[in-house]
Amino acid sequence: CPCPLPRGDCSLSRLLRLLLSARRSLEICLFAFSSPQLGRAVQLLHRRGVRVRVVTDARYMGLHGSQIGLLRRAGIPVRHEQETGYMHHKFAIVDGRVLITGSLNWTTQAIQSNRENVLVVEDAEYVKPFLDEFERIWEEYNPRQLQIF
Amino acid sequence: CPCPLPRGDCSLSRLLRLLLSARRSLEICLFAFSSPQLGRAVQLLHRRGVRVRVVTDARYMGLHGSQIGLLRRAGIPVRHEQETGYMHHKFAIVDGRVLITGSLNWTTQAIQSNRENVLVVEDAEYVKPFLDEFERIWEEYNPRQLQIF
Repeated sequence: CPCPLPRGDCSLSRLLRLLLSARRSLEICLFAFSSPQLGRAVQLLHRRGVRVRVVTDARYMGLHGSQIGLLRRAGIPVRHEQETGYMHHKFAIVDGRVLITGSLNWTTQAIQSNRENVLVVEDAEYVKPFLDEFERIWEEYNPRQLQIF
Repeated sequence: CPCPLPRGDCSLSRLLRLLLSARRSLEICLFAFSSPQLGRAVQLLHRRGVRVRVVTDARYMGLHGSQIGLLRRAGIPVRHEQETGYMHHKFAIVDGRVLITGSLNWTTQAIQSNRENVLVVEDAEYVKPFLDEFERIWEEYNPRQLQIF
């Protein structure tokens, strides 16, 4: 990265720029989402009229610092799993066209301190299976499908 | 996946097949590695003369069920971080040519129960940065570079 920022800030700024390029839709499928900067960017897109949908893991979303409650209160639809396994994906899709995926959860710890990778891919061959997986999960985690224990 | 196995077993068998296709080298860069089947496959490749190198996270590798100790005892070189952040990658590179990356740690829980993604990529454009990152980490975690506290 040729920019003069420290590595974590540089990665964050690239990710923010990419997200803020969304004009129509943003699918977010994240095990953990606690970065305030990324949370604000997602809320901004929502206010701009971009269709934002979020899928996340039930165990992490209740933790201190999670952005999920704020996104929900802002009116963004969020669905979460209720299974025994983790919803462990870490990807987002901008305008149905650009896939952002890798090891990175959207947390300040991960952005600033971890060794992580983020792939940005526009080939439909790679994007399509992730879009399909998002729609599958979105339906599977539909609250109408949730069982009451 | 058209195979008749349950999803987790099918994913595992595809991953095993891909790994066992290695003829020359296998770089493994994993936050968590506890799957006994994948551990046995990696040991088999090592015995066949494939050059195996492993990078992992120090906190996870001591946990019960981790394969890292077994790999080390089999003579496979393993390096780990000693930083404050996590070594959170989840990728492997077969013969310097095929990149396997995604959200999946090589654990039975993840393979059997989680929602995960694994990308298999052969385009050099994507493989090269991961190879470079592996070599960077490999040098950075060289025991000769470790500080004694």
